[in-house]
Amino acid sequence: MEDSNEKLTPLSELGEFGLIDKLTSDIKIKNSTTLVGIGDDAAVIKPKNDMLTLVSKDLLLEGVHFDIMYAPLKHLGYKAAVVNFSDIAAMNGKPKQLLVGIGVGAKFSVEAIEEIYIGIKKACEVYGVDFIGGDTTSSASGLVISATIIGEVEKDRIVYRKGASPNDLICVSGDLGGAYLGLLILEREKKAFQANSDIQPELSAHDYLLQRQLKPEARVDVVDLLAKNNISPTSMIDISDGLASDVMHLCKASNTGCVISEDKIPIDQSTFDMAKEFNIVPTVAALNGGEDYELLFTVKQSDYEKIKTTEGISVIGYMTDVSEGERLVTNDNESVELKAQGWDALKNKRTKN
Amino acid sequence: MEDSNEKLTPLSELGEFGLIDKLTSDIKIKNSTTLVGIGDDAAVIKPKNDMLTLVSKDLLLEGVHFDIMYAPLKHLGYKAAVVNFSDIAAMNGKPKQLLVGIGVGAKFSVEAIEEIYIGIKKACEVYGVDFIGGDTTSSASGLVISATIIGEVEKDRIVYRKGASPNDLICVSGDLGGAYLGLLILEREKKAFQANSDIQPELSAHDYLLQRQLKPEARVDVVDLLAKNNISPTSMIDISDGLASDVMHLCKASNTGCVISEDKIPIDQSTFDMAKEFNIVPTVAALNGGEDYELLFTVKQSDYEKIKTTEGISVIGYMTDVSEGERLVTNDNESVELKAQGWDALKNKRTKN
Repeated sequence: MEDSNEKLTPLSELGEFGLIDKLTSDIKIKNSTTLVGIGDDAAVIKPKNDMLTLVSKDLLLEGVHFDIMYAPLKHLGYKAAVVNFSDIAAMNGKPKQLLVGIGVGAKFSVEAIEEIYIGIKKACEVYGVDFIGGDTTSSASGLVISATIIGEVEKDRIVYRKGASPNDLICVSGDLGGAYLGLLILEREKKAFQANSDIQPELSAHDYLLQRQLKPEARVDVVDLLAKNNISPTSMIDISDGLASDVMHLCKASNTGCVISEDKIPIDQSTFDMAKEFNIVPTVAALNGGEDYELLFTVKQSDYEKIKTTEGISVIGYMTDVSEGERLVTNDNESVELKAQGWDALKNKRTKN
Repeated sequence: MEDSNEKLTPLSELGEFGLIDKLTSDIKIKNSTTLVGIGDDAAVIKPKNDMLTLVSKDLLLEGVHFDIMYAPLKHLGYKAAVVNFSDIAAMNGKPKQLLVGIGVGAKFSVEAIEEIYIGIKKACEVYGVDFIGGDTTSSASGLVISATIIGEVEKDRIVYRKGASPNDLICVSGDLGGAYLGLLILEREKKAFQANSDIQPELSAHDYLLQRQLKPEARVDVVDLLAKNNISPTSMIDISDGLASDVMHLCKASNTGCVISEDKIPIDQSTFDMAKEFNIVPTVAALNGGEDYELLFTVKQSDYEKIKTTEGISVIGYMTDVSEGERLVTNDNESVELKAQGWDALKNKRTKN
């Protein structure tokens, strides 16, 4: 796609099987547990005897989960893979095998689908995941990307949402709210462009926030870091819906309440500045923005010293008895009820799972 | 849905999490290998030590793979599950765990999604499969059903597409072409209805063909039957694209040619009669129709006596050296080149993988 004048290849020129061959012929298997990848009726895995198998899937739909006008196809492929890897990290596991089904309209070129595949393959390379199932079909409407991830975790390392107890510390990796601000920037520039197509989008100053939205990473490195520092989370989830909604998932599954301290929520300076520009309280972006794909987890109080010295992890609150409900202590030291106003796929249009 | 005057519930009334709870609260785990189903970031499976894990996924898109005007939602859910089970049977394995992601337009009611779930759950019940992942999201366009199946097979029972040798016998279960005739009937009645909505569709006389199209079954029973009769296929695939295309997949993977005898291709009387009515050569429906989900497999010549006495299996030809190409011996005893004109998802609109 280097040369935009290059002739694009219509899908009909290759047909389904030719296309799959073209897209998948360079894929190499990296993991010893992957016996057979793309090319038969099913992929074949030989799980290790002492490991549990983790499975998760996500459906990304054009016009709902992404806007093709500003999401580069390469990044879209990368993101579709990574949001699935994130679900495996949230179980304290490692992603190992990925399958992706893509539905494309007839207007799509072979080169456009290749771009999506470049992103998927890049994500698989970065995370050491085998791409074992790929399937491209026509779509009567928009672009559909459906990914399934298989992961593994040692039996005694698996972490569920339900394992937290009152007094456990609530921790989060990285910083929050950036992905949402990235989305607001993209939507602003899209509107400006639609109003006047001579205006070139001003995006270069916002690299970090745009990367958070368009090309997020899964915190598999945090899974490694916790293991290295001998920290066993009692419960864990990845932040896809927003801190508020996701901590409430942990509380519901663990039958606890919680207290989150607003002043402890990690927010990057660029998120903070851009929130001000959009006239949004930065904490609201962190609580309800979603799509940050950081890990939210709880640890025993006895792990406090270990967590404190673990770089890139913030302690933002603690679990309470279920009777105390879910609370946010604001910067003004007021205790208010925590509310999940985040992305609800069926109530709002713009969302992801 | 018994009473059509019943008030339908808009999706917004429940929201995403409420809807998932409603749809999945009655799901019970049946298989000992399923540790955790719906409700965490990933499902958890403990594979048996001596088993291989099989994984396959299929994407079904409205307007491409099905027409909501004549495909009852219940059957659609059933079919989405079963076509995936069929991929596992094609590896000589058993389906064990199913995940389904559904994208629905805002016009969908809770009751409509429940219908799809009823079909999925029914298929899981019939085939002893655990429904371990369900996720419903909004779709800006048509209905999207994305299913992933996990299966298992003993290490020494797995069958690939690539294992056939020249002289191996080519066998097929059941009968072929019925699903395609079922589709033609549905399209004819749809056109009649669109031309004059007073005309009620005449479907009752075509139960078998409509069932083949709308509510196919996966031949997991054939996997059992082959094991019971001590027959080990050398290669296998399920017939989703049509006999011609699928036998060519076996030939390509196994590096063989083949000879198929037209007069040996199993065709049900109702398929035969309806093909005549549509002025189609019945064999063409069998060769190129697709969606029959029968098993196409090869066995050693030495298994001929065993196969001959196995009910519901037809020997339709044999593998040859690759240099002899792929041939069809017609009823007139002419040898012609076999051509796959079947469903190619990207060349034609109406297809499935």
